[in-house]
Amino acid sequence: MTIKALGYAANHSFTKLKPLAFERAEPAADEVRIDILYCGVCHSDIHQVENDWGNTVYPCMPGHEIVGHVVATGERVTRHAVGDLVGVGCMIDSCRQCEPCRAGDEHHCEGHNSWLATYNGPMKAASQTDDGVNTYGADNTYGGYSNTVVVKEDFVLKVPAAIPAEAAAPILCAGVTTFSPMRHWGVKAGDAVGIVGLGGLGHMAVKLAVALGARVTVFTTDEDKVAPAKALGASRVVIEGDKQAYKDLELSFDFILSTVPEKHKVDPFITLLKRNATFCAVGALTELPGYNNQELIMHRRTLAGSLIGSIKETQEVLDFCAEHGIAPDVEVIPIQEVNAAFTRVKNENVRFRYVIDMASLKQEMAEA
Amino acid sequence: MTIKALGYAANHSFTKLKPLAFERAEPAADEVRIDILYCGVCHSDIHQVENDWGNTVYPCMPGHEIVGHVVATGERVTRHAVGDLVGVGCMIDSCRQCEPCRAGDEHHCEGHNSWLATYNGPMKAASQTDDGVNTYGADNTYGGYSNTVVVKEDFVLKVPAAIPAEAAAPILCAGVTTFSPMRHWGVKAGDAVGIVGLGGLGHMAVKLAVALGARVTVFTTDEDKVAPAKALGASRVVIEGDKQAYKDLELSFDFILSTVPEKHKVDPFITLLKRNATFCAVGALTELPGYNNQELIMHRRTLAGSLIGSIKETQEVLDFCAEHGIAPDVEVIPIQEVNAAFTRVKNENVRFRYVIDMASLKQEMAEA
Repeated sequence: MTIKALGYAANHSFTKLKPLAFERAEPAADEVRIDILYCGVCHSDIHQVENDWGNTVYPCMPGHEIVGHVVATGERVTRHAVGDLVGVGCMIDSCRQCEPCRAGDEHHCEGHNSWLATYNGPMKAASQTDDGVNTYGADNTYGGYSNTVVVKEDFVLKVPAAIPAEAAAPILCAGVTTFSPMRHWGVKAGDAVGIVGLGGLGHMAVKLAVALGARVTVFTTDEDKVAPAKALGASRVVIEGDKQAYKDLELSFDFILSTVPEKHKVDPFITLLKRNATFCAVGALTELPGYNNQELIMHRRTLAGSLIGSIKETQEVLDFCAEHGIAPDVEVIPIQEVNAAFTRVKNENVRFRYVIDMASLKQEMAEA
Repeated sequence: MTIKALGYAANHSFTKLKPLAFERAEPAADEVRIDILYCGVCHSDIHQVENDWGNTVYPCMPGHEIVGHVVATGERVTRHAVGDLVGVGCMIDSCRQCEPCRAGDEHHCEGHNSWLATYNGPMKAASQTDDGVNTYGADNTYGGYSNTVVVKEDFVLKVPAAIPAEAAAPILCAGVTTFSPMRHWGVKAGDAVGIVGLGGLGHMAVKLAVALGARVTVFTTDEDKVAPAKALGASRVVIEGDKQAYKDLELSFDFILSTVPEKHKVDPFITLLKRNATFCAVGALTELPGYNNQELIMHRRTLAGSLIGSIKETQEVLDFCAEHGIAPDVEVIPIQEVNAAFTRVKNENVRFRYVIDMASLKQEMAEA
């Protein structure tokens, strides 16, 4: 038995997203089916569609910031019930047996050639594995730019009622990707935290850091982002290249999080770190330039990376946002505008998240 | 009152070390005077003499691996007595008031423009400070390539009787520089530890890691170091560039310590780290090349640097070596051979430490 479904997908790296009718399997015993209300537009969606990481499987139907209602459950499902408002982030399965999975770090799964992504299939495609196979079976998965999705219940999050459903969507990727490293490196009240970049991830990072009680400095290349950064709670905004500001801030940060999704210098930020402090880049899935190791040595500083977050951390950041009354700033669009939204994200570096209202698919489904 | 002293110093970056008669101040109330028995030859001595870091003050009299007997004490000295066998490492003072000093990390002192080095004066010369002054007063200090030294008692270490005096000297820099990061990043019994480079620091790192109970892999460019590395207790030796070995070792190390004193690639080592593990480079006071941030992100790995170690850690590594019956491999030379030793360290990448027997200065002192 299968479920007829409709989504938006790209057939090549150089084509636009367009409607694709497809089928989902009925929920297995440990799975739930979700009718999708909203799905966020993540910068990763664009990288994946355009094959920037060289591993895209086509058709590519993106979407890993999914919010919707449970409409069916497999017979062994205990954690979710029909009618629940739930979310799905970047992962829909992992091996559950490797050391990271057993430690609750399934986002660092080392079995089955890493975790199963909500779209584009296994994190390591068969072509990237040593033996030319991946043990999930599937070569591809279709994400949340669609009307419905079927997911194992352990990878489904509860969306607190206090968060508007459309604003909850970006918490599932942008939220946890910035929350997880702040938790891991122990950001706490009173800490001086730097956030580099004020796009989808950056603006969420500022809100979360402020809610954690940190004093937040935003680093941006864009003068137009000074006022918005302050409105989000940043106590200071530094325009990159302002040498005096960088000099004044030497040795003053407990943690710096870069959300910039492309190659950028790290040296200017290393000197701003206190002794034992960490610069963590979550956006740049690429090579970063050479760095002055003497500056690491002199104050025992570290450079790090961090990937999304665990399922436990994803639930924590949803609950944290509800408790602190914060949520991403979103602009809701119909799915017919998703290609234009991609262009604006690429060109304008928007400081909020586009979220697709999946009600906009209904007309097309009726026509299909 | 001053003490007539004799040492070996360089007058320029391009000249050899030669005898220099000079004077030391008598010990102040909180200082001890030490007659030097042995002083190790550190690769840093060569960098400093040749002005590789651009901050050398001439005449430059190196030596920061000093072992000798206390021969006089100031009236407030309580920790050391005449006749004690003691050591002096890289530091002879710090501000004692900044947060790192109060936390016992005086090697990361942020007051007085950093700590006072055993030779070459303040870590930051006046020319390198914002206001053109350093608050230690002295512009230069003369190190342990000399017959006697006067040092504040808090920066003087106790040398355990179980360690031969000449072998204790390199523990004061090479030992603590490799021990401190292994302690800081929690190397423990059963861990897989990589040591990159098998020179003065590297060979000591292997001994310390083995004594900590780690399974040690040595990475070297030199086939001739395979047997010596295994003799030191390494369970595996990898020749850099052996692609299959690097592939086999992916995701397998808890900690990798690079002791290479020059620029080298970090990417090949990043992929060898387990999730949450650290690559720490202690030797390269320079720029390191660009790195693949995706490999940091995927397993939350970190890149770090580490500088010598605290006074407390220096005493700990001396006591640890005594307890475990380990010591650096040394070749004792007369001071008249120090220029030749410099050349051999630079060209031959020796896998032990040269240590100067200061008795060799006596003839020259009699003649002076």
